[in-house]
Amino acid sequence: MARVVVDVMLKSEILDPQGEAVLGALPRLGVNDVTSVRIGKRVEIEFDDAVQNVEEQSQIIADKLLANPVIENFTVSVLDEDAV
Amino acid sequence: MARVVVDVMLKSEILDPQGEAVLGALPRLGVNDVTSVRIGKRVEIEFDDAVQNVEEQSQIIADKLLANPVIENFTVSVLDEDAV
Repeated sequence: MARVVVDVMLKSEILDPQGEAVLGALPRLGVNDVTSVRIGKRVEIEFDDAVQNVEEQSQIIADKLLANPVIENFTVSVLDEDAV
Repeated sequence: MARVVVDVMLKSEILDPQGEAVLGALPRLGVNDVTSVRIGKRVEIEFDDAVQNVEEQSQIIADKLLANPVIENFTVSVLDEDAV
């Protein structure tokens, strides 16, 4: 079984209101030394044993389905290459 | 500057409708060999140079603010230890 993680983050020039909200809430926890918070998606995908081109298929899934390439970047990491 | 990544995922026994929706859409992309998709949050936090206890503070932020410990697990990874 091959496991793949796709991380999808907003591009750095795109405003991240969710991250800003967390940043604004940190002083209430007593944390005052954070300069930036950015929030994105982490997607964990598990493939069948038989699949050969796990990384290629994951790139297609990320590009077509998980990320909006206009405003988001993504990275694909194959965690478990047993079946690749 | 210390960078920390907090990954927040639903516990495995909790239903993930967003992941199920992605899984159901994959055949339309021609991908039929995926057995599971789980979707969570990736939070990137940047601390000031001066901060000493980056990991401890990140654990507090994740536990109190980013994750719901009833239904979610989180992992804290310190990426850049220059300032620690």
